[in-house]
Amino acid sequence: MQRWALLLEYDGTPFIGWQRQKSGLAVQDVLEQAASHLARGIYVPCVAAGRTDAGVHAESQIAHLDLAADIHPGKLRDALNFYMKPHPVAVRMAARVAPDWSARFSAIGRAYRYVIIDRPARPALLAGRVWHVHQRLDAQAMATAASLLLGHHDFTSFRASACQARSPLRTLDALDVRRDGEQIIIEASARSFLHHQVRNLVGTLKLVGEGRKPIEWVVEVLAAKDRRAAGPTAPPDGLFLVDVRYPVDPFT
Amino acid sequence: MQRWALLLEYDGTPFIGWQRQKSGLAVQDVLEQAASHLARGIYVPCVAAGRTDAGVHAESQIAHLDLAADIHPGKLRDALNFYMKPHPVAVRMAARVAPDWSARFSAIGRAYRYVIIDRPARPALLAGRVWHVHQRLDAQAMATAASLLLGHHDFTSFRASACQARSPLRTLDALDVRRDGEQIIIEASARSFLHHQVRNLVGTLKLVGEGRKPIEWVVEVLAAKDRRAAGPTAPPDGLFLVDVRYPVDPFT
Repeated sequence: MQRWALLLEYDGTPFIGWQRQKSGLAVQDVLEQAASHLARGIYVPCVAAGRTDAGVHAESQIAHLDLAADIHPGKLRDALNFYMKPHPVAVRMAARVAPDWSARFSAIGRAYRYVIIDRPARPALLAGRVWHVHQRLDAQAMATAASLLLGHHDFTSFRASACQARSPLRTLDALDVRRDGEQIIIEASARSFLHHQVRNLVGTLKLVGEGRKPIEWVVEVLAAKDRRAAGPTAPPDGLFLVDVRYPVDPFT
Repeated sequence: MQRWALLLEYDGTPFIGWQRQKSGLAVQDVLEQAASHLARGIYVPCVAAGRTDAGVHAESQIAHLDLAADIHPGKLRDALNFYMKPHPVAVRMAARVAPDWSARFSAIGRAYRYVIIDRPARPALLAGRVWHVHQRLDAQAMATAASLLLGHHDFTSFRASACQARSPLRTLDALDVRRDGEQIIIEASARSFLHHQVRNLVGTLKLVGEGRKPIEWVVEVLAAKDRRAAGPTAPPDGLFLVDVRYPVDPFT
């Protein structure tokens, strides 16, 4: 058996998320069905670095799978892309990795981008890819508030009740907020994130951006260790998994 | 009557283009139907700066229309956006203009962006918004070839047979090509363009980027004044109308 690392891109809109569930179509289903075509119908389990939720997109999701037959990496990429049609999922690259390498457990960093479109008019070109916020947001206030959340903390206030992680402790390495015209771009990176952590951070920062909460309020939210203290969960539309880091990049 | 200038954004994918035709849905239909709601059912004709083709997108299309009732610009924007739902068309801004102002005839410049995704894997996130080219393109060669097409020329070789313009003479003010990771971005600006001119320029530059034609070939294509001398028409997916200029910007 050969283990493969795959660099995936997908539009999360039509999916119930990365992970297979009892009903609905998951990105995992689409990839596993394509892989099973290459394995003569045998089920091929796939593991991903980040289990993105319904409607969340990926520019760079990493997954791994095992195949018995040897194949050129470019051929594997093209064959999987062929069988995944017409679903909006594409394998950008495929690379051979060691049998004990895991897309999930070998990862040492994940980065997400969240995009808000901050204008009165609803989005047309970016529908499904942004969170539409009507009110003018103060990106500088959001950036300052974001900086107060960096570091090693108990992020219980920003954790979904369904979160299955053993510990609410995480180290937030970056949480940058900047305005680019009508857009507010929020970039977050950490070794790993709690369930809904980025969307709950964004929903909280938005209240600061609107001026409904002062900058320092986010410190109280963090200290409360209570989900009810934070802002609402931002919608999935604006969230993109953009990078997963490993001790050695399998694709170079 | 009050004449209004509208700054529009749309995803061209579901439309037969800007212009109303006997069958199919045009962006013009969607805007005119919304405007007629505001005019108590009376037909409100709308004129646009650029009659984009089927599948071509707009970040900044400009249109004008006349309405009898006075209304606040923000209310007009919101009302049109409400009535245009769920179509992927949005009014970004509305501004009062003089009765003789024309979105089309007052315009003194148009700018288009064309986006190629240059990689083996088909696009997932950008499906419908880019031209997928498998072969690696030489963006530098394309940029040099593009620079040879600048200025005042007879662009017959780059003109659709259906083009209704009286003259094939146009002044190409900019035709910039640059690589941004997997993307090749082509930006074109001129007072006005011939039908399919940008897509035919892109289809021609792509042959240079692939190395199938030398850089200087584009000069022969221009001199031939024959559509058959140029490359094929690039698909509409990658084309965006991004700017229309007027002697005085109506929105500031």
